[in-house]
Amino acid sequence: SRDRSFLPVKMVTSAVVNTYPLSSYTFGTKEPKMEKDTSVADRLARMKVNYMKEGMRTSVEGILLVQEHNHPHILLLQIGNTFCKLPGGRLKPGENEIEGLKRKLSSKLAANSTGLQPDWQLFLHILNCLILVEFKRFMIFDGCPCKWLQLQIGECVAIWWRPNFETIMYPYCPPHITKPKECKKLFLVHLSEREYFAVPKNLKLLAVPLFELYDNVQRYGPVISTIPQQLSRFQFNMIHA
Amino acid sequence: SRDRSFLPVKMVTSAVVNTYPLSSYTFGTKEPKMEKDTSVADRLARMKVNYMKEGMRTSVEGILLVQEHNHPHILLLQIGNTFCKLPGGRLKPGENEIEGLKRKLSSKLAANSTGLQPDWQLFLHILNCLILVEFKRFMIFDGCPCKWLQLQIGECVAIWWRPNFETIMYPYCPPHITKPKECKKLFLVHLSEREYFAVPKNLKLLAVPLFELYDNVQRYGPVISTIPQQLSRFQFNMIHA
Ligand SMILES: [Zn+2]
Ligand SMILES: [Zn+2]
Ligand SMILES: [Zn+2]
Ligand SMILES: [Zn+2]
Repeated sequence: SRDRSFLPVKMVTSAVVNTYPLSSYTFGTKEPKMEKDTSVADRLARMKVNYMKEGMRTSVEGILLVQEHNHPHILLLQIGNTFCKLPGGRLKPGENEIEGLKRKLSSKLAANSTGLQPDWQLFLHILNCLILVEFKRFMIFDGCPCKWLQLQIGECVAIWWRPNFETIMYPYCPPHITKPKECKKLFLVHLSEREYFAVPKNLKLLAVPLFELYDNVQRYGPVISTIPQQLSRFQFNMIHA
Repeated sequence: SRDRSFLPVKMVTSAVVNTYPLSSYTFGTKEPKMEKDTSVADRLARMKVNYMKEGMRTSVEGILLVQEHNHPHILLLQIGNTFCKLPGGRLKPGENEIEGLKRKLSSKLAANSTGLQPDWQLFLHILNCLILVEFKRFMIFDGCPCKWLQLQIGECVAIWWRPNFETIMYPYCPPHITKPKECKKLFLVHLSEREYFAVPKNLKLLAVPLFELYDNVQRYGPVISTIPQQLSRFQFNMIHA
C-alpha cells in the first residue's frame, strides 16, 4: 500500500491519563476515506460474507482524549450530519490488536508519508513545534519532532460482542451463544503534547465532552454513550497550555 | 466494636477473573442490619449533616461475582421487595479504601467471630470444606480452612460523583463543580472457591446475571445497570464444581 504513515506506538498502562488542551493539536485534511457500505443492510451482508471466509470479525477502536474547560472530551469522526464513530476498524486475520489499531488510526488520522502535499496546516504545526516546544529535541533527533502522530495505545476499556448478523451488540457474550459474529475492543489511546491530525476530507473530527455522551444512547448508540462510565476509574490529569 | 469478623484481604489485579459456581458457596443468616434512614429525604439530610462535619463522603462498594450456566452473576443485597444495592458503605474520615471496603463487606456478609451461635449452615459448610476440599490445608494451618470469607479486593472499576445533595450521580465530576458531595468507588472483589456468607436477616442476597442488569436502569439504577459495560474488559474464567 502507498498509504504508509508515521505512527510510533507503544503500550501503556496507568490509572492517570494526561489530557492536553484541544488547542495543542493541529488539524489538517487528507484525501477522503469512503465508507465501504452505503447502508446498514449492505454492512451486515458484507459482514456475513467475511464471516464465511474468515470467521469471527475482530475490530479495534481508539478513545483519544483531549481537554477543554477542564473536562475530558473524546475525538469522534462524524460521517454526514449525524452519525459518529470512534476511529478504528477491522483487524486482518491473525493481526495483533495493538498493531492493528495503530494501522487503523494511522489510516484514519495520520499524515501520509507518501504523496505529502504542501499543506499550510502541517507547515505551521511543524513551525510551532520547532519554535515553541521542541527546538532542543529537534537538534538532537533527526526529523520532525512531532513525528506526525505520537500515539501510545493504552488499556482495553471495553469489549462488545455481536451475537448475530444484526446491529445489536452486548458488553458480554450472551449465554448460549457459542459463535459470536464480532468482538469489538475499545482501547484508551494516549496522545502526546503536540499532534498533527490529518482528517479525511469526507469526515469531520469532533471533540465531544463526556457530559454530552453520558446517558445519550439516542444520539451516540450504546457503545459510545457508555464510554464515560468505562473511563470513570481513570484520573484525568488536565494539562493546560 | 464487638462485631469483629474474620476477613483476610489482599489487593489483586488481573484481566482474568476466576468465577466459581453459586453452588460452591454456603449462605447462612445473622442479626439484622437496619438501614440508617427510612426515606430518601432522610438520607440526603443525614448526608448534608455529615458533609458539614467531615467534608466529602467517600463510599466503597464491592462487585462479587459467581457463575451460573456459564454466565457471570453479581451478588446484590435486596432490601424489602425491590430495592437492590451492592454490599459496601461509607468510609470513616481518613480510612484506607481497601481496608474500609473490607470492613464494610465483613459487616454485611461475614460471620461474626464473637457471639457465634450454633448455625447448621455454617457447621455443614465447615464439614463440607473439611471433607471435600481442604483437608490437607486444615492439617497444615491451624483454623477453619475457609476462614469464613476469603475476599481479595481487586481493581477499581468505576467512580461515581454526587455534585449536590440530590440522588443524581455522574461517572465524572461535572464541569464547574468544585465541591462534590460524594465520591463512590466500585471495586471488583475476588471470591475464593469456598465461602460462607452470613446475610443479615432483613436482607436477601441475590445472584443477578449480567444480562438482567444490562440496559435495565429502571430496575437497578444507573450505577448497577452499567456494571456489565465496566466488566466487559475482563475475561471470566468460569470454573465448574
Ligand atoms: Zn466551561
Ligand atoms: Zn510537531
Ligand atoms: Zn442456562
Ligand atoms: Zn470452609
